[in-house]
Amino acid sequence: MSSYSKGLEGVIAAETRLSFIDGEKGVLEYLGIPIGELASHSTFEETVFLLWNGRLPSRDELDAFNAEIRRRYDPSKEIARLVMEMPGSGEPMHVIRTLVSAFGLFDPSPNAIDLPSIRDKALTLLAQTPTILAYFQHHRRGTAIVLPDRSLSLAENFLYMLNGKRPTPTMAKALDVCLVLHTDHGLNNSTFSARSVISTESDIYSALSAAVGSLRGPLHGGANEGVMKMLGQIPTVDSAEAFIQDKLARKEKIPGFGHRVYKSYDPRASYLKVLARQLAEDTGNRDLYEKSARIEAVMDREKAAKGIYPNVDFYSATTYHCIGLPLDLFTPMFVVGRIGGWSAHLLEQLADNRLFRPGVLYTGPHGVRYTPMSER
Amino acid sequence: MSSYSKGLEGVIAAETRLSFIDGEKGVLEYLGIPIGELASHSTFEETVFLLWNGRLPSRDELDAFNAEIRRRYDPSKEIARLVMEMPGSGEPMHVIRTLVSAFGLFDPSPNAIDLPSIRDKALTLLAQTPTILAYFQHHRRGTAIVLPDRSLSLAENFLYMLNGKRPTPTMAKALDVCLVLHTDHGLNNSTFSARSVISTESDIYSALSAAVGSLRGPLHGGANEGVMKMLGQIPTVDSAEAFIQDKLARKEKIPGFGHRVYKSYDPRASYLKVLARQLAEDTGNRDLYEKSARIEAVMDREKAAKGIYPNVDFYSATTYHCIGLPLDLFTPMFVVGRIGGWSAHLLEQLADNRLFRPGVLYTGPHGVRYTPMSER
Repeated sequence: MSSYSKGLEGVIAAETRLSFIDGEKGVLEYLGIPIGELASHSTFEETVFLLWNGRLPSRDELDAFNAEIRRRYDPSKEIARLVMEMPGSGEPMHVIRTLVSAFGLFDPSPNAIDLPSIRDKALTLLAQTPTILAYFQHHRRGTAIVLPDRSLSLAENFLYMLNGKRPTPTMAKALDVCLVLHTDHGLNNSTFSARSVISTESDIYSALSAAVGSLRGPLHGGANEGVMKMLGQIPTVDSAEAFIQDKLARKEKIPGFGHRVYKSYDPRASYLKVLARQLAEDTGNRDLYEKSARIEAVMDREKAAKGIYPNVDFYSATTYHCIGLPLDLFTPMFVVGRIGGWSAHLLEQLADNRLFRPGVLYTGPHGVRYTPMSER
Repeated sequence: MSSYSKGLEGVIAAETRLSFIDGEKGVLEYLGIPIGELASHSTFEETVFLLWNGRLPSRDELDAFNAEIRRRYDPSKEIARLVMEMPGSGEPMHVIRTLVSAFGLFDPSPNAIDLPSIRDKALTLLAQTPTILAYFQHHRRGTAIVLPDRSLSLAENFLYMLNGKRPTPTMAKALDVCLVLHTDHGLNNSTFSARSVISTESDIYSALSAAVGSLRGPLHGGANEGVMKMLGQIPTVDSAEAFIQDKLARKEKIPGFGHRVYKSYDPRASYLKVLARQLAEDTGNRDLYEKSARIEAVMDREKAAKGIYPNVDFYSATTYHCIGLPLDLFTPMFVVGRIGGWSAHLLEQLADNRLFRPGVLYTGPHGVRYTPMSER
């Protein structure tokens, strides 16, 4: 047995060709392509193709891939009915986890894990998770659901189904970029948990519902809600500095700052910052951006001592708010993007699988006698 | 970064005081008590108390614990209704995973992860998983559900709800012992996956639905179905040897033999062997036991060369069959037992949590240019 590192920090748990992170230099690449280039030039659908196939598509391939996704926007009657049977009081992350699991009940071969089957099932989950989210939002609000529109991209269609009208190009682009930035990120906890689950040769519904459950945690995807809550607690731009100084004085964590992997500026955050600024201007939410910028300035002065930079959650909060997402759909939106990455990791794991079965450091007693009840 | 061991073999991923395995010597202990002593003298409920509290209960404590479990046998209206809405064609493991997840929709504080809340929610899942399984079995068969009987132990009550009549003492004891033997087993994949998921500070429904999904896999809990299928393919006791020799000649795996951890006789298998023999006699299934014994004899001659022993799945197949479980409820029964162990591990993980966020060995390219579509 090797030495023990809590949380497996610094332990290599798998090989991957999908994404590369240099936390010191602030680099993130998908298949070697810097994330900034993809955010600037690619689309979410193309990025998923890249991760699933290891290369960018030709025009024909991308057209076919987009068409495959779009023709799956509509869920089956059974899944649509189940969404409408979810309690309106249920939290969206619990709803998605339950529904991703429920897909396994209606799939005639839920346990197929050959690579073509995994791709096929992953496409359906990728295409229908936005639909489910939008349907659930209408269901709990008591408003009429809006059927998907196959003439729209995944990001456009989601905002269309959610708001009942076509999004502005800026909003659609903002959501699409958010999805690109969130598609993959090395062996983060949800991806690692999904790979661990599928390593028993179980199935995609088991692996991806586990990933959703992991992402819900406040130490993982759930963190973006914390940023928005904090921004809501700060009444004015000018009070932001005092608010943060006060939190720091009480040694409280500042949501949206710091990351286990990045020890410099998170490259996703630098891209989102520009996006958030523009969107905030366009949508009359300039205050929200200004508050964020003030917070970052305070934290920047702290940085010299502590090296704590804004992470991907910090400016995605403003972005999501500006495109009209309710707070509790922030993390579910992260799910939509990450399904692309999780599925790519399942394909990678299954192509060269080995059951995850680590060792454990036993710290308890040995050879204890079972004391009969009469002697206790 | 340390060296890379595929599947984390030999890597220590966590500390535990719950169970200890010596794979070389064939030892399994819960809190230091040898598994054979617990199987002989304890009950499933007492074993769960032991794992959750680190010690055996007094008479009063055990009475109170049993009463707590029994008063939770009946599911809420919402959960009961959801069971009846599951498609009858759904596989039971997909049903349980979905329902464990769905509990999070009806819990008014699903995300509470303080230790008393985790215990409380775990008790409910422990008490109601058998009810859900029995209800689903009646639902898909079109027979009337049998309400739980709080005068019965968990094992007795399950068989009562399943078959509509009280089980014989031998059958109830056999199921109870199976549950004890399956309650915990170090950092197996489902337990590890559950600890990984909860390490994001998510919730018990996320962690335990992930564990169910992991256990479904044929390389983990799903293996016990393979044994029963094999026994069904062997027409007579006398043909067992030729059947196995043929499989060995074709270099096929023999279900129920070999284990990643045990390099000697699995102590659970040796106990189950005695139990299976007795049950097979009592229930007119002697052939099933005899076939198993013949298979073991053939494998025993192989052992000298390969060191492959029967594992816990091998004789649990006969045991489950003899107590009247349909094949696709074998792995779900494993869930019922393991909920006790998984929950104990969640308590242990949360008492001293650190996010699981391992490193990865990147094998892809760097600094690749995003080729514009026109150049592809």
